[in-house]
Amino acid sequence: MTDASDQGLAAYSIDSFLHELASSAPVPGGGAAAALVGATAAALVSMVANLTIGRPRYAAVEVEMSAILTEVERFRRDLLRLADADAKAYEVVGAAMRLPRSTEAERQIRTEAIQRALVGAAAPPAEVMDLCRALVPLCLRLAARGNSNVASDAGVAGELAAAGVRSSVLNVRVNLAELKDADVVRRYENRIASATAGLSDDVDRLSAIVRAQIAPKGTA
Amino acid sequence: MTDASDQGLAAYSIDSFLHELASSAPVPGGGAAAALVGATAAALVSMVANLTIGRPRYAAVEVEMSAILTEVERFRRDLLRLADADAKAYEVVGAAMRLPRSTEAERQIRTEAIQRALVGAAAPPAEVMDLCRALVPLCLRLAARGNSNVASDAGVAGELAAAGVRSSVLNVRVNLAELKDADVVRRYENRIASATAGLSDDVDRLSAIVRAQIAPKGTA
Repeated sequence: MTDASDQGLAAYSIDSFLHELASSAPVPGGGAAAALVGATAAALVSMVANLTIGRPRYAAVEVEMSAILTEVERFRRDLLRLADADAKAYEVVGAAMRLPRSTEAERQIRTEAIQRALVGAAAPPAEVMDLCRALVPLCLRLAARGNSNVASDAGVAGELAAAGVRSSVLNVRVNLAELKDADVVRRYENRIASATAGLSDDVDRLSAIVRAQIAPKGTA
Repeated sequence: MTDASDQGLAAYSIDSFLHELASSAPVPGGGAAAALVGATAAALVSMVANLTIGRPRYAAVEVEMSAILTEVERFRRDLLRLADADAKAYEVVGAAMRLPRSTEAERQIRTEAIQRALVGAAAPPAEVMDLCRALVPLCLRLAARGNSNVASDAGVAGELAAAGVRSSVLNVRVNLAELKDADVVRRYENRIASATAGLSDDVDRLSAIVRAQIAPKGTA
């Protein structure tokens, strides 16, 4: 890892982040990628809100857009923080895996440490999943009522947020796979079911709204 | 824009890229976001290939994985380059829009300049779309035959690549909306049809493969 890792994902250059991601180092991996995509979606939502606020034509939605902007700026910060939390949680799993396993007592300690680490490692991707899911209805509102010149950007934000949800489902499940605590697994599976419920329908609706907004207006 | 813009997207820190994306500046926007997501997918494909190559258990797919790695490293470079090409093409559209339109002659020159600029602006997102689409079958091969410990990362790569395709469709269409040349529009619509054909099916297949690979193995 480069020095930038001390300050977290946000401080990386895009080039060096992608270089680290592509390498055989275990982190950053799919968890950081999903969080980054979610943060990119959040930033695009901010852009559309920023290009709507203060325009006389959109005065009627000014209060709504300002509220969305405040909310989504927090989402972006949280998603970047979760990328780092994900990497740290993964390192705990790796450290537990490397514990000695020569004796029965050591094997028991190691198994318990791995189980605890896996429970911890499922939390950051589950939070990324929930935040990305919460972005989708904001994209729908922006596409429908925000500045129509950037409706396609609201649509892109929705596609990226949906990919953030679906990617995070995989990132949660890879940690659940070896978990022995059926209650924990069930709780996460319920959370996955909530996050994915209606997602494809929402994205399809968003796509239809965006297409209507970007239809030829004959102004060119 | 910051100084980093002179060196292109790759030189930005993630934090400052997201800050610029979120701002009311017209670029970077949905085009750069889609290209970045595609480059992130490509980097994850590289990671899975790198974690497969050189492992005795995967010796049978070594040649295939090396070929994928070479191809996808080029994709990543091309996608970063296209993010910058997208921004430049958008600036040409903006400059054409700002041409004077006081006289009939000026209006004619402006309309033609806008039309030419819009044709140029559709090209980078269409290339991003095609590259992201080409990533999806590579993700399928990696998930099925690459290192099964990182199958979920191949799945995340596929979700991000699919989002890159769908986002780029919107980015192409927003440029087509005002285009008067029906032949150009038809050519791009055909290209969109090719890129999206079978995409959802491929992603569903990928998801099923990943789920099978990350099913409990009882090793923890």
